[in-house]
Amino acid sequence: MRDFSDLVYLDNNATTAVAPEVLEEMLPFLRDYYGNPSSMYDFAGVVGRKITEARERVAALLGARPDEIIFTSCGTESDNTAIRSALMSRPERTGVVTTRVEHPAVKNLCEHLASRGTPVHFLPVDSLGRLDLDQVAESFKAEPAVASIMWANNETGTVFPVEELAQMAHEAGALFHTDAVQCVGKIGMDMSTSAIDMLSLSGHKLHAPKGVGALYVRHGTRFSPFMIGGHQERGRRGGTENVASLVALGKACELAARNIALENGRVAALRDRLERGLLERIPQAKVNGDPEHRLPNTTSIAFEFIEGESILLMLNEHKICASSGSACTSGSLEPSHVLRAMGVPFTSAHGSVRFSLSVYNTERDIDLVIEKLPAIIARLRELSPFWPQDACKVVA
Amino acid sequence: MRDFSDLVYLDNNATTAVAPEVLEEMLPFLRDYYGNPSSMYDFAGVVGRKITEARERVAALLGARPDEIIFTSCGTESDNTAIRSALMSRPERTGVVTTRVEHPAVKNLCEHLASRGTPVHFLPVDSLGRLDLDQVAESFKAEPAVASIMWANNETGTVFPVEELAQMAHEAGALFHTDAVQCVGKIGMDMSTSAIDMLSLSGHKLHAPKGVGALYVRHGTRFSPFMIGGHQERGRRGGTENVASLVALGKACELAARNIALENGRVAALRDRLERGLLERIPQAKVNGDPEHRLPNTTSIAFEFIEGESILLMLNEHKICASSGSACTSGSLEPSHVLRAMGVPFTSAHGSVRFSLSVYNTERDIDLVIEKLPAIIARLRELSPFWPQDACKVVA
Repeated sequence: MRDFSDLVYLDNNATTAVAPEVLEEMLPFLRDYYGNPSSMYDFAGVVGRKITEARERVAALLGARPDEIIFTSCGTESDNTAIRSALMSRPERTGVVTTRVEHPAVKNLCEHLASRGTPVHFLPVDSLGRLDLDQVAESFKAEPAVASIMWANNETGTVFPVEELAQMAHEAGALFHTDAVQCVGKIGMDMSTSAIDMLSLSGHKLHAPKGVGALYVRHGTRFSPFMIGGHQERGRRGGTENVASLVALGKACELAARNIALENGRVAALRDRLERGLLERIPQAKVNGDPEHRLPNTTSIAFEFIEGESILLMLNEHKICASSGSACTSGSLEPSHVLRAMGVPFTSAHGSVRFSLSVYNTERDIDLVIEKLPAIIARLRELSPFWPQDACKVVA
Repeated sequence: MRDFSDLVYLDNNATTAVAPEVLEEMLPFLRDYYGNPSSMYDFAGVVGRKITEARERVAALLGARPDEIIFTSCGTESDNTAIRSALMSRPERTGVVTTRVEHPAVKNLCEHLASRGTPVHFLPVDSLGRLDLDQVAESFKAEPAVASIMWANNETGTVFPVEELAQMAHEAGALFHTDAVQCVGKIGMDMSTSAIDMLSLSGHKLHAPKGVGALYVRHGTRFSPFMIGGHQERGRRGGTENVASLVALGKACELAARNIALENGRVAALRDRLERGLLERIPQAKVNGDPEHRLPNTTSIAFEFIEGESILLMLNEHKICASSGSACTSGSLEPSHVLRAMGVPFTSAHGSVRFSLSVYNTERDIDLVIEKLPAIIARLRELSPFWPQDACKVVA
C-alpha cells in the first residue's frame, strides 16, 4: 500500500484521525470484553458500566445530563432522528424551518419530506453565509414543529447564532434542533443553560472512529424513536450498542473538552497563517463565509476561474489532503449548494477549496501548502480558458 | 477488572467475540487509513477500494451481487429499512404480514406501525414454533406490501421454510423480507437462485464487531431509503461509511463462508452433547422449538418450576454465560414472547435457558455446564414453592 507517513491532512471537516488515546481505550472492547451489555452476567456488566462512563463523558462535554444523550450510528442518524421525532411527536404543528446551507443529512431529508407533502421553509443566507433574523422570525409564523439550523457550516466554518435562534423558535412554539457535528469540540457549549432542544454530533469529526454519533435530547422533550427495536437507549434507539465505538466516543469527548483551548489557540493561528500565506501569494483568491463568526479550524478559499477538483488532484501529488465542498456531496459535478446559496459566482464556487485543520497539524503542514499551492494555481490558470491571460501573475 | 480468561461463553446468539483475523484486518483502518472514502485524494481511495472488497465478501457469502448489499449500522437498522422501504415504495398494497416470534427489531416496529394505522397480521406458531402454511396463504389474501418472516429464531433456533414462504409471498404479489441475523454463517444461502427480496444480517452475530450490519436488496426491487443524507451506498443509506467495521464485516463473512461446515459439524455435535448431557441428568427438562429444523448452534431448554434468571446468576458464578430469552428483551420480567407464542406453559417459559455456541467453544466448555448445571437446578428447585418436593430427584 502507498506510504502515507508524511501526509499533510487538512480535511478534518471530512473526517479525522482516531486519537491514539481513543484507540487504546476502545481496543479492549474489540478484543476481550465483547459481551452484550443487555446480558445479565458479570462479563456483560463490565461492558454496561463502560457505556455508562462513555455517556457521562459525552454529556460532560455538552454540559448535559447523561440521560439526555442517545447514542446513534452517525451524525446523519442523529439528524434524521431529531427531525422525524419532532414531526411525529408534534402533529399539531406544521413542518420544518431550516436553511439552504445545511449538511445533506438535514438538507436531503428536508427535501424528501417536502416532496412527500411536509411544509419546509428553507431560509436563505447572504453573501457571507449569514441568516437574516427578520426572515427567521417571519418563517416561524407558519408554526413549524421544529427549526433545524446548523451550528457551524461544514464548508465555510460560518457559525450561526444558535442560542438566539433557539430562543426565537421557543417564542414561536417550535422545537429547536441543531446539527453541531462540525463544531462540537471547537466551540464551548453548555446545554444546561441553553435553549437548544436537540443537538447532533458525530464521533469521526472529533477523533473517534466513523460509525458512531449521539443525539442530545433535552430532558422533558417529547420524543418518538426513529430506529425501533429492542429496549436499548431506554427505548429511544433499538439495536445492540456499538460498544467499542461508544467507549471511543466517550474518550474522544473527554479529549475534546481539554482541546477546545488548543483549537481556538494554536489551531486557529495555524489556520490564519495558512490563509494569510495563500492570500498574499495568490491573486484573485477570496475567503468564503463570515470572517467574524467562524470555526477556528476552517478556511474555504475561492480561486477564481479554475476547478477545485484539479487543485485537489495536484495537491494530492504532494500528499496534501483538502476538499472542495463537503465529502458527503463529492462525486457530484454541481458546485457546492452552500456557496451557491451565498451567491458566490459560478467561477469562484467551482474553484473553492476547503482546508480544515486539527490539533495534529503542524507548521510544516501549513508551510508546505503555502509553498506548493501558488504554483499549482498559476499552472491551472494558464490552462484555463476562463482565465484572462493578461491578468496579474502569481507573486513569488 | 475481573479476570474472564477462563470464561465459558455460550451466548453467541446474543453476540460473538470478534475473530482475531477480523480485528487484525480492521485495525489499520482505525489506526492509519482514516480517510473519508468520499474524498478524492489517494489517501481516501485506499479506503474506498477496501470497502469495495468488503462488499464483495459480504455478497459472496450470500450468493448476491455486490450492488445488492447496503451497509447499515446493525440488524435492527436493516430490518427497519426493509419494512419501511416496502411500505413506502408500494403504497398501492396494504400493510405487513409477520409472525408472533420475530426479534424485537421486527416485532416492535410492526407493533408501532400497527398502532399508527398500518394493517399488520401477526401469524401464530404451533407448540414447536412452526408456522401453518395454510394460515400464511390466508394472510396473504389481504394483499400486504411485504411479508417479514425471520429465517431462524434467535431464542429457539427454529428455522422457517423461507424459500417456500418467499414463493408464496410472490404469488400473492408481496415482497418477502427475512431477518437472517441469526442464521447467516450457519445456513448456506444463495440469493442468486432464491425468491427472497430483502435479507437482514448483523456483524456482531458472526464475529465482526457490534455496530455494523447489511441489508441485501434484490436488484430491481423498488427501494426507499430509511436514513437520508449524503450519496453513500449509491444514495440508499446516508452517513459516512463506518470503514473499519465494514472491513471487519467483510472479513467475518469470508471466515463464515469457510466455517459453515464447522458450524454444522463440530459445533452441532457439541450442542447435541450439551443437550443430551443435560436432559439425561436433569428431570423435567425439555427442549423448546422444532427438533427437526433448527440452527446447529442453539438449544433452548425449559427447566420446570424455576426462574431462568436464577439459573443464569448461578451459572455466572462458574463464569458460564447463557441467557433466558433474547438479550434485546432482557431486563423485562415478562417471559419470552417467543415461548408464549408457542404456548409453552408459564412454569416452563420462565425457567428456560438458551445456550448458543460458536466455533470457539470446546468440549471443556460443554462438560463444565453438564457438570455444574444439574446441581444448580436441584438447588433452585429445593427453594421453589412451585416444585413438588416429592418429585424425582436430580440424577448423579
